[in-house]
Amino acid sequence: MDDSVLKNLILGKYSKSRLECREIAKNPELHYTAGLTVGEHRERVLKQVGILAKTGIVSKAFPKEYGGENDFGGHVAAFEELFVTDPSLQIKSGVQFGLFAAAIQHLGTEAHHDKWLNKAMNLEMLGCYAMTETGHGSDVFNVRTTATYDIKNDSFIINTPDRQAWKDYLGNAALHGRYAVVFAQLYTDMNKKQGVHAFLVPIRDEQGNFLEGVGGEDDGVKGGLNGIDNGRLHFTDVRIPRENLLNRYGDVAKGGNYTSPISNPKRRFFIMLGTLVQGRVSLDGAAVVASKVALQIAVTYANKRRQFMKANGEETLLMDYQTHQRRLLPLLAETYAANFAHEELLKEFDKVFTSLSSGTVEEVEGMQDLETHAAVLKAVNTWHGLNTLQQAREACGGQGFLQENHLVQLRADFDIFVTFEGDNTVLLQLAGKRLLTEYSAKMKDASLAQKISFASKDIIEKTRFKFTELNHANTIFELLKVRVDLMTAHVASTMYNARKEGKLEEAFISNQSNIVELAKAYSDFIKFDAFKQAIKDLPHNSEWNPLNDLRKLYGWTAIQKNIGWFMTEGLVTASQSKEINKIVDSLLEEIRPHSQKLVDAFGYESEHLRASIFKK
Amino acid sequence: MDDSVLKNLILGKYSKSRLECREIAKNPELHYTAGLTVGEHRERVLKQVGILAKTGIVSKAFPKEYGGENDFGGHVAAFEELFVTDPSLQIKSGVQFGLFAAAIQHLGTEAHHDKWLNKAMNLEMLGCYAMTETGHGSDVFNVRTTATYDIKNDSFIINTPDRQAWKDYLGNAALHGRYAVVFAQLYTDMNKKQGVHAFLVPIRDEQGNFLEGVGGEDDGVKGGLNGIDNGRLHFTDVRIPRENLLNRYGDVAKGGNYTSPISNPKRRFFIMLGTLVQGRVSLDGAAVVASKVALQIAVTYANKRRQFMKANGEETLLMDYQTHQRRLLPLLAETYAANFAHEELLKEFDKVFTSLSSGTVEEVEGMQDLETHAAVLKAVNTWHGLNTLQQAREACGGQGFLQENHLVQLRADFDIFVTFEGDNTVLLQLAGKRLLTEYSAKMKDASLAQKISFASKDIIEKTRFKFTELNHANTIFELLKVRVDLMTAHVASTMYNARKEGKLEEAFISNQSNIVELAKAYSDFIKFDAFKQAIKDLPHNSEWNPLNDLRKLYGWTAIQKNIGWFMTEGLVTASQSKEINKIVDSLLEEIRPHSQKLVDAFGYESEHLRASIFKK
Repeated sequence: MDDSVLKNLILGKYSKSRLECREIAKNPELHYTAGLTVGEHRERVLKQVGILAKTGIVSKAFPKEYGGENDFGGHVAAFEELFVTDPSLQIKSGVQFGLFAAAIQHLGTEAHHDKWLNKAMNLEMLGCYAMTETGHGSDVFNVRTTATYDIKNDSFIINTPDRQAWKDYLGNAALHGRYAVVFAQLYTDMNKKQGVHAFLVPIRDEQGNFLEGVGGEDDGVKGGLNGIDNGRLHFTDVRIPRENLLNRYGDVAKGGNYTSPISNPKRRFFIMLGTLVQGRVSLDGAAVVASKVALQIAVTYANKRRQFMKANGEETLLMDYQTHQRRLLPLLAETYAANFAHEELLKEFDKVFTSLSSGTVEEVEGMQDLETHAAVLKAVNTWHGLNTLQQAREACGGQGFLQENHLVQLRADFDIFVTFEGDNTVLLQLAGKRLLTEYSAKMKDASLAQKISFASKDIIEKTRFKFTELNHANTIFELLKVRVDLMTAHVASTMYNARKEGKLEEAFISNQSNIVELAKAYSDFIKFDAFKQAIKDLPHNSEWNPLNDLRKLYGWTAIQKNIGWFMTEGLVTASQSKEINKIVDSLLEEIRPHSQKLVDAFGYESEHLRASIFKK
Repeated sequence: MDDSVLKNLILGKYSKSRLECREIAKNPELHYTAGLTVGEHRERVLKQVGILAKTGIVSKAFPKEYGGENDFGGHVAAFEELFVTDPSLQIKSGVQFGLFAAAIQHLGTEAHHDKWLNKAMNLEMLGCYAMTETGHGSDVFNVRTTATYDIKNDSFIINTPDRQAWKDYLGNAALHGRYAVVFAQLYTDMNKKQGVHAFLVPIRDEQGNFLEGVGGEDDGVKGGLNGIDNGRLHFTDVRIPRENLLNRYGDVAKGGNYTSPISNPKRRFFIMLGTLVQGRVSLDGAAVVASKVALQIAVTYANKRRQFMKANGEETLLMDYQTHQRRLLPLLAETYAANFAHEELLKEFDKVFTSLSSGTVEEVEGMQDLETHAAVLKAVNTWHGLNTLQQAREACGGQGFLQENHLVQLRADFDIFVTFEGDNTVLLQLAGKRLLTEYSAKMKDASLAQKISFASKDIIEKTRFKFTELNHANTIFELLKVRVDLMTAHVASTMYNARKEGKLEEAFISNQSNIVELAKAYSDFIKFDAFKQAIKDLPHNSEWNPLNDLRKLYGWTAIQKNIGWFMTEGLVTASQSKEINKIVDSLLEEIRPHSQKLVDAFGYESEHLRASIFKK
C-alpha cells in the first residue's frame, strides 16, 4: 500500500480543508487543558473561538459577499477536524457559526444578512440557538414559547408559558450570549397560530446583564464539554421589532398579514428545520474523527506494549492477543466504512446546500434523502464513536484512564453527541419511517400486501440460491441488502394491515423497535456499499489486500451481530454460520500485521493525539 | 407485592450493614461536590475518609482484638453502599482499609498487627498498596521491583530496576501516603529469587516529603475518581528492617534463611494473592449498587416525562415507548439477577475469609471456587454497571448529561472499575481456564476426547428433546446450562488434541476468545440460577408475578444475545427463535406497569440519588 494514496483516500474530497484545519489545530493555545475550573475553561474556550474566527476556518460556509467562501462541504470538513483541539471549542464554535449565524443565513433574508451576518462571524454578536425546551427536546414541533404579533406597536412579544417551556441546554446562554435565535410558536392577528418560526432576540446588555423580561439559569457542570456555558432562558413579555422575525419561510407584514412561500404548515416546518441537517452531518463526521483518533492511540499502544510471559520467555505484544484483535480490528473496519459513508454524505450535503443557498428555491431535490442519510449515519456513527473511544480506553488499561493519554476526556466530551442534534433513537425512528414511506410509494400501484408477500418470498429464494460461495464480498452485499428489503417488507405489511383496521398508531408503537432496527440495518448496508465504492478503483494487487480484507471484516461482523436474524429468516444455515465465524477469524489474522499502517493512515500527528504513551 | 418483603429480599443477608451505611451516606459532608479543582477534591475526600473512620463502618472486617468485628461480609456490604457518597471516597477508603490495612492483616503476622493495624485503622498511618507497575498490571507474577536481603545489616534493600517497573496508579501515592505495602521479588542469600512478597516501606516523612531513595510522580487528572491522589513510586536502595517483610506466607530469618508454610512457589504466590479476591467481590457489589442507582433514576424519570403528541392530543410517557422499555427493562432484569448472584458470592466470601482469618490455615476450602466466581461476576457485572449507567444517562437525554442529575459523574467514576482489580478480559480468561481445568479433572479417568465427543452429542440430544415447552423457566435454565457444558466440551477437546501435538500454548492463543466467551456463558448461568434460588420461596400468587417475569426476561434476553450460537449448534430452531422474540415482547409488556415498584424496591432515598429531575 502506498501510504500517501491511502491517506488521501481517507481524507477524501475535502482534504484541503481538513489539512488546513489540522495545521491550525496544532496550536497549543487551542488545546484542551486539564485541571481548569469550569469558569476558567469557559473563558479559555471563548478566547479560542476568537482565535479561530480570525483564521477564517469557520467562515467557509458563508456567502462570498460577506467574506465567506460558499463552501459548505469544506466548512463542515474543517469543523469535524476541530474535534482534536478541544471538543468544547468545536461545539462552541458550532453554536456560534453553525447554528446561530447559520440560522441568520438560512432562515433570514438579505436585510438580516446585511445587518447581522458579519457581526456574528466576527463575534461582535455572540449568540445562542434557542430551540430546545426542557419539556420538548426532540419534539420541536410542539415547543411552547410564543411570539405574538402586536399590531399596535408593530412588534412581537416573546413569552415563556411555564417551566417546561424554558429554553434549555443552550450553548452561550449561561454567560457569553448577547443574542438568541428563539424558536417560538408564531401568533398573528386574531390569535392565529402559524407554527414554529425563528426570531432574533437580544438577551443581554454589553455588561452581560439580562435585558428586561429575560431570565435564565446556568446548566452547571456537565458530563463533558465544560468549556461551553450551557444554560436556560425564559422570556416574559419581551418585545422585539417585527423585522427580527427571520422571514425566509414565513413573513408577517405590517398590520399582521402572514405570508409564506410554502402553503402547507407541516411542510414549512420541516423545510425550516431542514437546515438542522448540517449539524447532523457535522456530528457524523466528528464521530468519524473521534473513532480514528481513538484507534490511532489504542492500536499504536497495542503494537508497543507487552504483557505476560510466553514459554520462550518473551512477553506477548497486546496486539497479538486474539481478544485484543477482536476488540479493536472490527472497530477499525467499521471506522473505515463510516469514513467512506460520511464522505458520500458530505458530498450530498454540499450539493443540496449549494442549491439551497442560491436563495431562489425553497425546496431542493435530494433534501429528503440527505435528511434520511444524515439521521441514520449520525445515529449509528456517534454510537460507534462512543463505543470506540471506550474500547480504546479499556484496551489501554490504566493508561487509558489517565487524562495524559487523552481518551477519557474525549469520551466524556463526546458522550452528548449521541443525544444532541437529535436523539439517536428518535433519529433512527424518523429514518425508518421514511424508508417505509418510500417503499409504500414504490408499491402503490397494486395491492401492497400481495406484492409484499410475493416480494419477500422472492427475495428469500433468490438470496438462498446465491449463497454457494460465502467467501466473496458480493455475498456480504447481498446479505446486507436482503436484510433491509425483508425488514422493510415485513414492517410495511404489518402497517398496511393495521391501517386497514384503523390501528396505525398502535402498530407504530408496537413496531417501534422493528423500525429502529430497520434503520440500523439500512446503515450497515450504506456503510458497506460506501466502502465498496471507495476502494473499487484501487489496483487489484496483493498490496491493497488489507483494504479488501477490512471491507469484508466490516461486512461479516455486521452480519455476525445479527446472525440470529439471518438464521431465523432461513437465509443462513448453521453450517454457513460456522463458516462465517471461520472467515472472520482468518480475516483478523490477515489484517493484524497491517494494523499499524491502517491507523497511521488516519494521519493525526502527535500534536493532535497528545497521548503520553507515545513518548514513553 | 409487599414492598418491605421485596426490599428485604434485595437487601439480603447483610441488610443491617447496608442500611447502616446508607444512613451514614446521607451526610452531605460525605457527598461529591461538583466544580472543585482536583486539589480541592482530594483534600475533601481525605477529610471524608477521616469522618468515615470515626463511624467504624470501615473497620468491620478487622479482628475484634483491634476494635473490629470479624465481620467480612458485613464489611464488604457496607463498602459497596459507599458508592452513593462519592465513589472517590469509596475507593480511597478501599485503598486504606481494604488494601493497605488488609494487607497488614492478611499477609502480616501478630507483631505486624500489634504494631500497625490500629494506626492504619485510625489513619495515623496512611498507606498505598504498591503492587501494579507501569509495565506489569495484570501480570503481578512478573513485577520487577526487587527486595534483596542484606545479611550484613539484617535488612532488605528495595530497588526499582527501570521505568517500566515504577509502581503506578496507586491511590494515596501522589500526596497523602506515608507508607506503602510494596510487592517485590524477594532475593535472599546467594541471590536466590523467592518470588513476589509484600514489604511495608515508609515513603514520606511527616511533612510529606519523600524519604531518601524514594521518588514518584502524580498520575494527574483522570477520567474519574479525581478525589483520589493516584501516583507513581520508585525506589533506589531503600533500606527497611527485616521485620517489615509481611511474613505470613514466607519469612526470612536473621542470616537469610527463607522458610514458608507453602513449599510450591507458584501455589504460594496464588495463595498470597488470594486476598485480592476481596477487592473483586467488593467491586462486583459496587457494580450492583451502581446499576440500581442508575435505574432508579432513569425509570423514575421515564415514568414522569412525556414527549411527542398522540392522536388524542396527550403526550406519551417515555416509559410507554417500546424502545425505552427495551432499553431499560432488560437492564433491570439483569440488575436483579446480578444482585442475587452477588449475594451468593458475598456469603461464599464471608465463609472463606472467616476461616482464613482464624490464622491456623494457609489454604481454605472453597477458595478456588470463590476466586472463579469473583472473577467472573466482577467482570460481567462491572461491564453491566457501566452499560447501565450509560443507558440510563442516554434515556434521560440532555437531563442525563447534567451533573445535577448525578449519572454522568457516577459513570465517569465507575469507568475504571472494568479494568482495575483485574482487567475484565484477563479475569474472564482466568475463570474460563479454571472451568476447563475442572472439567478435565472430572474427565480424567478415561480417554478425554472420546468422552467429550460422547458428552456433547448426548447434551445436544437431551436438550433438543426437552424444548417442546418454550414458555417455561426451566427451559431457560437448561439452555443456559447446556451452553456452558457444550462450550466447555468443545474447547476442552481442542486443548486435548493440541496438548497431544505439543501445541498447547498456540491453542490457548487461538482459543482465547472462546475461553472468554465460555466464562461469560457461565456467568449468565450462575446469575439466572441465583435469581431462581432467590425467589423460589416466594408465595406462588399473582402478586409476585413481576419477579417471575423479570427472571424470565433476564434469561431469555441472555439467550437472545447469543441466539446465533444456539441456532448454529442446533439447539434452537428458526421457529423457536421467533417464539422467543414474542415471549420477550410479552414479558416487557407484563413488566412495564410494575417498573416503578421494581426500582423503588432498591430503596435509595433522595439523599442518595441526588438527581434534580426528582424535584422538578
